[in-house]
Amino acid sequence: MSRMTILTETELRKIVTLDLDAVACVENAFRALATMPVAMPPILRLDIPEHRGEVDVKSAYVPGIDGFAVKISSGFFDNPKLGLPSGGGMMVLLSAKTGVVEALLLDNGYLTDIRTAAAGAVAAKHLSREDSTVAAIFGAGLQAGLQLEALRLVRPIEEARIWARDAAKAEATAARLREKLGIMVRAEPDAAKAAAEADIIVTTTPSTEPLIKAGFVSAGQHITAMGSDAEHKNEIAPAILRMADLYVADSAKQTRRLGELHHAIEARVMTADAEVTELGQIIAGEKPGRRSASDITIADLTGTGVQDTAIATLARDRARAAKAGTIFES
Amino acid sequence: MSRMTILTETELRKIVTLDLDAVACVENAFRALATMPVAMPPILRLDIPEHRGEVDVKSAYVPGIDGFAVKISSGFFDNPKLGLPSGGGMMVLLSAKTGVVEALLLDNGYLTDIRTAAAGAVAAKHLSREDSTVAAIFGAGLQAGLQLEALRLVRPIEEARIWARDAAKAEATAARLREKLGIMVRAEPDAAKAAAEADIIVTTTPSTEPLIKAGFVSAGQHITAMGSDAEHKNEIAPAILRMADLYVADSAKQTRRLGELHHAIEARVMTADAEVTELGQIIAGEKPGRRSASDITIADLTGTGVQDTAIATLARDRARAAKAGTIFES
Repeated sequence: MSRMTILTETELRKIVTLDLDAVACVENAFRALATMPVAMPPILRLDIPEHRGEVDVKSAYVPGIDGFAVKISSGFFDNPKLGLPSGGGMMVLLSAKTGVVEALLLDNGYLTDIRTAAAGAVAAKHLSREDSTVAAIFGAGLQAGLQLEALRLVRPIEEARIWARDAAKAEATAARLREKLGIMVRAEPDAAKAAAEADIIVTTTPSTEPLIKAGFVSAGQHITAMGSDAEHKNEIAPAILRMADLYVADSAKQTRRLGELHHAIEARVMTADAEVTELGQIIAGEKPGRRSASDITIADLTGTGVQDTAIATLARDRARAAKAGTIFES
Repeated sequence: MSRMTILTETELRKIVTLDLDAVACVENAFRALATMPVAMPPILRLDIPEHRGEVDVKSAYVPGIDGFAVKISSGFFDNPKLGLPSGGGMMVLLSAKTGVVEALLLDNGYLTDIRTAAAGAVAAKHLSREDSTVAAIFGAGLQAGLQLEALRLVRPIEEARIWARDAAKAEATAARLREKLGIMVRAEPDAAKAAAEADIIVTTTPSTEPLIKAGFVSAGQHITAMGSDAEHKNEIAPAILRMADLYVADSAKQTRRLGELHHAIEARVMTADAEVTELGQIIAGEKPGRRSASDITIADLTGTGVQDTAIATLARDRARAAKAGTIFES
């Protein structure tokens, strides 16, 4: 017999929000990834082409964290025709000491949204200029808004531009965020103008062609590319990786295979064996981050299992404290 | 919002048992693996050496089956000291059409036990002589008994010998099975004598040294090796693979890496690029199975995700019919 806590999306939305605790927990996970013998196996990936479906399973054990998550996330791109969201998923939290299932987090992808946005905040905190006030967000989906919210946790953002392929969607997202955040947010249909003089650029799209061209980028900017989590996705022109003063990966192993780095290697702008700085190494003080106000910095975020383990254990701890969820025995 | 059925181990034990339906469902899965574009990604494996823990995640999509399982199975070998079983796990069943989570099967490894035993029956059905009456089972754990039960579903087994490293455990298991099955079951402390004149030999141990030596094997025997599911495990002397008339893998890709075949390749008794017959090819009639009563046949079973998908969908279908389980919305 084992005893587990089941938490629904509604319950999880109440106990885990995008706040500085979530940012700190993801920051700690990245520090551990760079400094401790973290076990993070390659992603298990299942494709179901008949239904335009894909499923990823991620996991990571972080020494010092007493639980580890196994996360299932799905994307089925015909779902909207059936009136269903295309993305879904859940996490299973197991005890790192006994392997016993401690919690089922039926989050429909919510915790992934939070840990992904929190990683954007961590990247901006360590790589962008402290006086960053202007953000350019590429994409108008859920992450576009969450990334902007996340930036505001760590930088004094006063103005944001939203660019999206679909101009109407950019307008709607800008209006929604203006309302929600109480800062100046406007849609900008010209990608070059959106990027110009932004202190921080965040790309959140599933684009397969670079949106950010080399000519868009200027001294002092920080770019976080977080849309690329599969081989074919590409948001940043490869040349920008070479011209940047600092390129940082969430996981060098993953970005060489999936991220913007992968495209830069294919374009022969970067070499496959070049040493890559990881975000955790900067957090841990092992490698320098931004060195001057004029540096161009890039964070290439593909999403890692350590973030899932971090947010899942935060959810479990919060649920315990709030006595939230349903206890189930089996 | 999604709606799922949660089934506990107790509920699953009532609706899924080791019977000919379970054997047929696993047999169909193997047929599909050999004949259809099944998607079966490599196993995700996480090791937690600090706690002598290991976690495997398996998945497979089988065209024609409307759901697919993601199975988490754990082994934490210090658990018995804490009064906990060393093995555990659960399955998540997702819709192959939408990716929506349909069922959480909190089976603590029960369904794996059943699908593993059912695979033993499938192997015996296609590879052993039809008149097989004597079985030798190596090992005295749970699978030892289940494998014997499984053989009886497909062959007229009248006598069984149990060999185990721990002679007292072999005696206890033999007594338990004699009682349960009503056939002659005795412990045999001499491994060579246990194997001698057995029609079917099944090895179910975590041994890292071959238990079945080349001299133990004689004409007409069938051997199923199902204990080897990791690189270091090895139950069958490599020479036996060469002397056998037919070597059959559950998945050639897996047995080259994990199974008895892997050790035979390392011992240079088999070559890494030799064509390997898969169990599903024999089921589908694509390749011949046993050709004569004197053939020596070997089935190398490492455990596959298609078996999990097959048993998980059987469990869901049975649960629907029996209106078993708890409906949960999230």
